Amino acid sequence: MRRSIATVCLSGSLEEKLTAAAAAGFDGVEIFEPDLVVSDSSPEEIRALADRLGLSIDLYQPFRDFEGVTPDLLEANLRRARTRFEVMRRLGADTILVCSNVGTATIDSDQVSADQLHRLGDLAASYGIRVAYEALAWGTYVDDYRHSWRIVERVDHEAVGVCLDSFHILSRGHDPAAIEDIPGEKIFFVQLADAPALSMDVLSWSRHHRLFPGEGAFDLGRFVVHLARAGYDGPLSLEVFNDTFRQTDTRRTAEHALRSLVWLEDRAARLLGPTDSLSRIADVDVPTGLDYVEIKAEDTSGVEVMLDQLGLVFRGKHRTKSVRLWSAGQARIVLNEEHARDLEPHVAGVGFQVRDAAATSERARDLAVRPAARRTHAGEQRLSGFVAPSGLEVFLNGRSAGGAEPFWAEEFEHGHVASDSGVASVDHVNLAHSWEAHDEAVLFYTSVLGLEAPSATEIAGPQGLVRSQVMSNANGSVRIPMNVAPAGQTRFPEHVALRCDDVAAVARHARERGLRPLPVPANYYDDLRARFDLADDVLERLRSNDLLYDRDDRGEFRHFYTPRIGRVFFEVVERVDGYDGYGADSAPTRLAAQARLDRLVAPRSTSA
Amino acid sequence: MRRSIATVCLSGSLEEKLTAAAAAGFDGVEIFEPDLVVSDSSPEEIRALADRLGLSIDLYQPFRDFEGVTPDLLEANLRRARTRFEVMRRLGADTILVCSNVGTATIDSDQVSADQLHRLGDLAASYGIRVAYEALAWGTYVDDYRHSWRIVERVDHEAVGVCLDSFHILSRGHDPAAIEDIPGEKIFFVQLADAPALSMDVLSWSRHHRLFPGEGAFDLGRFVVHLARAGYDGPLSLEVFNDTFRQTDTRRTAEHALRSLVWLEDRAARLLGPTDSLSRIADVDVPTGLDYVEIKAEDTSGVEVMLDQLGLVFRGKHRTKSVRLWSAGQARIVLNEEHARDLEPHVAGVGFQVRDAAATSERARDLAVRPAARRTHAGEQRLSGFVAPSGLEVFLNGRSAGGAEPFWAEEFEHGHVASDSGVASVDHVNLAHSWEAHDEAVLFYTSVLGLEAPSATEIAGPQGLVRSQVMSNANGSVRIPMNVAPAGQTRFPEHVALRCDDVAAVARHARERGLRPLPVPANYYDDLRARFDLADDVLERLRSNDLLYDRDDRGEFRHFYTPRIGRVFFEVVERVDGYDGYGADSAPTRLAAQARLDRLVAPRSTSA
Repeated sequence: MRRSIATVCLSGSLEEKLTAAAAAGFDGVEIFEPDLVVSDSSPEEIRALADRLGLSIDLYQPFRDFEGVTPDLLEANLRRARTRFEVMRRLGADTILVCSNVGTATIDSDQVSADQLHRLGDLAASYGIRVAYEALAWGTYVDDYRHSWRIVERVDHEAVGVCLDSFHILSRGHDPAAIEDIPGEKIFFVQLADAPALSMDVLSWSRHHRLFPGEGAFDLGRFVVHLARAGYDGPLSLEVFNDTFRQTDTRRTAEHALRSLVWLEDRAARLLGPTDSLSRIADVDVPTGLDYVEIKAEDTSGVEVMLDQLGLVFRGKHRTKSVRLWSAGQARIVLNEEHARDLEPHVAGVGFQVRDAAATSERARDLAVRPAARRTHAGEQRLSGFVAPSGLEVFLNGRSAGGAEPFWAEEFEHGHVASDSGVASVDHVNLAHSWEAHDEAVLFYTSVLGLEAPSATEIAGPQGLVRSQVMSNANGSVRIPMNVAPAGQTRFPEHVALRCDDVAAVARHARERGLRPLPVPANYYDDLRARFDLADDVLERLRSNDLLYDRDDRGEFRHFYTPRIGRVFFEVVERVDGYDGYGADSAPTRLAAQARLDRLVAPRSTSA
Repeated sequence: MRRSIATVCLSGSLEEKLTAAAAAGFDGVEIFEPDLVVSDSSPEEIRALADRLGLSIDLYQPFRDFEGVTPDLLEANLRRARTRFEVMRRLGADTILVCSNVGTATIDSDQVSADQLHRLGDLAASYGIRVAYEALAWGTYVDDYRHSWRIVERVDHEAVGVCLDSFHILSRGHDPAAIEDIPGEKIFFVQLADAPALSMDVLSWSRHHRLFPGEGAFDLGRFVVHLARAGYDGPLSLEVFNDTFRQTDTRRTAEHALRSLVWLEDRAARLLGPTDSLSRIADVDVPTGLDYVEIKAEDTSGVEVMLDQLGLVFRGKHRTKSVRLWSAGQARIVLNEEHARDLEPHVAGVGFQVRDAAATSERARDLAVRPAARRTHAGEQRLSGFVAPSGLEVFLNGRSAGGAEPFWAEEFEHGHVASDSGVASVDHVNLAHSWEAHDEAVLFYTSVLGLEAPSATEIAGPQGLVRSQVMSNANGSVRIPMNVAPAGQTRFPEHVALRCDDVAAVARHARERGLRPLPVPANYYDDLRARFDLADDVLERLRSNDLLYDRDDRGEFRHFYTPRIGRVFFEVVERVDGYDGYGADSAPTRLAAQARLDRLVAPRSTSA
């Protein structure tokens, strides 16, 4: 199906919105009237710009409070409609959205509304324009799409059809199956939005909390299947009001929006079975493991000291680049100093093990993901890669086999050197995003890589709540907890968690080599005693190694943290008997301890 | 009554929270257990710090999921309680908050809960501790304060009483009048929070959207009256969970919190009538007019050019300071270059006309407002002043008489020079606050100056929604619309609106003197035509002067804007027949036009 987006979804001027929509790969746009009103481009100039960009203007919206009114008001509304039709003629737009009346309707009669819409249809037809009538969820008399369709049937005018908006239908819990009772050619337009499951008034929910498809709780795949079965062949258009998107970079939001629509169409195509009307993309190929984590900085030597303390071993320098490999078991850390002037240590890339790197790359490309540029020299292995929302470079290795060494490791000068540290693998990589980028990042990892996103948690830090969303594959061999940094904290750190079978041994080894782990306060252990009824000797073993502790219904979790270097730090974890969490109850203690260390480095100013 | 605050209301370390609470003037604190757990100070050290600061530790909280459980679980819960009582003994805290069970209760029996709380009371008494039992709004079996009181009556133990929390009572719509049925000495503790009227699940509402008293929709004045009538004489304590406060400067939040509590106690005292138990402060003295607006910058000459274009006249330089006065009618603009190195033009101060400046100053001081430091020379008039949340300096003139010249004007060298421009007064001053400071600013203007805060609106700008809240006195002679800048926009401009009787004449005069008003796009006038059915010649008169237009049920509004200088710009407005708004429908057009001008000055980077 053709893909369209409402200009209200994007930030910036109308010209910027159109340019970003075209650059992302949309076929058309809905022009949100206020975006035109505030523009200093004339309707003719906007039309010419859209033409140059290859965008159709699929809809002009919204026209409010038309039907169910007294005769006087009807005449005024028809005059108002005429001025809008004049503008649409100049714009070259041939469909207008008419929302069910929420303000001025006083006559609760389908026949009156149908008669009035029939007159609007006559006027519209004289301009070559079609009227798409939509039931708003909070319409005074018409708040259900089945009701708007009954009225449109009664209008019986070739220029009057319905507009279906997933938000207005699914937010009210209305069954979308009756879409199939509407002839496809009478569905003049379709608007899509997802939304989180919130219980609040539906108007605020609609105005502030809509999401792109795949980010919320609505079953939009099924919604699109009903449309296809009804025979609808117009555009699928996104109309998402969300405070975040309006404050985010326009081009990035447009790519994010297109990704959600491609993903949705693919999902619907798979639900529907063989069809020509819906496009499919390559199958998702969920990563089976983490190939490596890349840390980049102008100077990575401090990280090297820490990796040595944690028991990883130096595996050599890359043949042609200023890149070094450290490892222990299946944990591989790549330290990259290429083109890193003035950069402090940070997580710059993650390698995933997949079955078919070429197919996943194709899927990523179809989902409007930008490829990562990586210089390759003669004789070197080529990895497929792309750029995740935070700027993280994601690379795919389709040739890893179980516990064997990855093929690219031979580009490093030393051969295989075993570590006896007990560190076995990377347990998880914890990424941080600004609040504007978080939803986009979740959609990226679910749609491109097929990771799952169980419910999120919130952690109280000394400078605000930290929202945390775990992304993982089914067996937990790939775990990416993602934190939303409190607003304004741009240097929120990320970390790499290494997994072992005896965290106390790794901690002792590290301490012998000079590591001072993140100090855990005595009050924490008093609290542990109360919460878990732990024996004194157990508590003492934890305390002496600055270990944190948690327990779930399966097993136990013991872990410690290193201090921060730049924007990265390390954690070492031991999972006992299938413990499946991340020690969230200990996170406030960790955040407070880090804040104390940070203050030693840079005392906080006491601003007025 | 004594004033207390829960440490969860404030950001930072526990030591910082206590220090800020004491500095603001609180008498005591509730220690939120997780704040202690993450601290590296021992309970003894926290106790010593509170002692030094003169703070009592009024409550230790929360203890969860105690009652209504199986016998096994009861024993475990008593063991858990014992470890908490040990910590409280070290802290020197003598009251613990026990919340009604939300997790582990399986027995819905008041007798069982009472028996179990009786055992807890015995244990607590052996430590000299009192148990304050609170009904959480989402408690499994106990979710109403009247129910928790029935259980406490049945417990009949001197160490067991109730804790009353305004959020849990008022969010459920429970009538607080029954508080008077509880003997004051059995009310062991009171927690206060306000909240906006939101329809969402009560848990999310509680966790994220509580507000300080006076900022939300609850009638807390009446709530405190019931407490006083019941004979309660313990502390009034704030417990406010809010994502904003946790990210805001600790000391400022503490002052803001104390202000809300002083205001509330005063309000309750006035409702109750003569009483010793509640403290009153000086009567509120609502400003009757704007005395002046001060604009400060290293170089104010650009502002002077603009004031001249708008028809204000130069009234002279201050005798001793680098300060200049411009005026027209009752509009007085003070330009200040004192101690302004590197500052761009911004609104730095506002003078209000009041009846009694001394009493208002006293009220401000009681409300924990910081006084403004202003150098006064021999022979100069002294103005009482203080600092509003944004750093704005607010000065009070208690000696202005109607339209007469203010007494301080004689400090400027020229005498009275009349302006014939038609500008008559300052219509409004539009201030901007970050989202963190907005609620604090609203409480400041309502509690200190008695301005009213009608409902807020939201305006769509090209880079996000702008929330706008008008503060005004009853007759509209003082109007302070306050905008919340979208997150991350730290240089959001403020403006001064000048009022006149013929805005077209002022616009023509300004244009003759070289002012280029903010250009209004042609599409805006096409839209006006459709919305208001305006005649062509009316539209043409608006268009030729770049005037914006609005209409309400009383009258009409015509206005134009100047370009921005630094962080300030001007508006000129004409109100016809008692129009009472601010042209909110035109605001998106204004924001878009300003964004276009800003781009000409500093092209926007196209970041990835």
